[in-house]
Amino acid sequence: MRRFPEAIQNAAAALSRLPGVGPKTALRYVFYLLKQPKADLQLMAKMITDLGEKVKICDQCFAYTEFDRCDICQDAKRDQSLLCVVEESRDIATLEATGMYFGLYHVLGGTLNPIEGVTPEVLKIKELTARLSTFDEIKEVILAFSPDVHGEATMMYLSKQLEPFGVKITRLARGLPMGASLEYADEVTLGDALKGRREA
Amino acid sequence: MRRFPEAIQNAAAALSRLPGVGPKTALRYVFYLLKQPKADLQLMAKMITDLGEKVKICDQCFAYTEFDRCDICQDAKRDQSLLCVVEESRDIATLEATGMYFGLYHVLGGTLNPIEGVTPEVLKIKELTARLSTFDEIKEVILAFSPDVHGEATMMYLSKQLEPFGVKITRLARGLPMGASLEYADEVTLGDALKGRREA
Repeated sequence: MRRFPEAIQNAAAALSRLPGVGPKTALRYVFYLLKQPKADLQLMAKMITDLGEKVKICDQCFAYTEFDRCDICQDAKRDQSLLCVVEESRDIATLEATGMYFGLYHVLGGTLNPIEGVTPEVLKIKELTARLSTFDEIKEVILAFSPDVHGEATMMYLSKQLEPFGVKITRLARGLPMGASLEYADEVTLGDALKGRREA
Repeated sequence: MRRFPEAIQNAAAALSRLPGVGPKTALRYVFYLLKQPKADLQLMAKMITDLGEKVKICDQCFAYTEFDRCDICQDAKRDQSLLCVVEESRDIATLEATGMYFGLYHVLGGTLNPIEGVTPEVLKIKELTARLSTFDEIKEVILAFSPDVHGEATMMYLSKQLEPFGVKITRLARGLPMGASLEYADEVTLGDALKGRREA
């Protein structure tokens, strides 16, 4: 196959490292970019380098922030007795979007997956227990992980680890999602939805 | 919804301009990039700006190149009597991949689409006719466009425009693609495949 000019090859190779982007999609991106003005390309390049330069990690909850401590950790109006443990920084945005949670967060940095090398030491579990021993205003820890294999394993592990602190440990309810059809619900979900039924 | 740090928002906005990338995919790219080392981000940024800095357009065939004239136009061993007209620079790579074509190319820069403002003046048609009047070694012009509405319209228009030059004007054969099932072939394709049948 004829090689494209080197600059095109290089840009396509760089973009094909993005998740879910193969060589064909990367080339499609490159040919789109080639039609953009130089200034736009420079702007996009700057935005990408800024990610490395400007985005830090909150020294308390490990969420992405542009300061040493994130705005939620700094906000004295947040409920200091509630701590929600999430897998990744982006989960915070999802939970905040509900408008139903006003406590603090703790980003674990992943879920337990020993085969891929994600052992408890790699995750921010030591930091979580340290936080619980330092701040005794924390009364409840919510484990907000996806209910998949690794999420469940992580929640079980964390429950054990946090037991000695005597805080309430909760997890998100399992039930039928909005718009779901009873006919296609799996038995575990439906069983939990029955157990957790509430007055209509 | 809680805003992400500004650098994350900006990068996501920039990436969501790529074709087929919505805000969710853009955020996914950003969170992937955040886990990469700074040096990798700088490299990717450089590759993107390089597209604007290094990639030029061949002054004869209008393909992307890093020089004033592309390597195919410069190659004296290519068949100077054949000229293949394509829609975009990337089509050249696809045709070269067949290993069956050794002539020259001419990139038209699009297909006729007056509703979107792509009139004959916008495309490199003047340049194509100029090339035909300058180089009388060109004996055959191959119109290699996709057989869709705009491609067909462009080929019809070009045929008319090139008639006065007395060169042979051809187009790609229509037929069943490799691996196709006769059952699902449309009647136009099948009709053309019948007309263009050859000895087995």
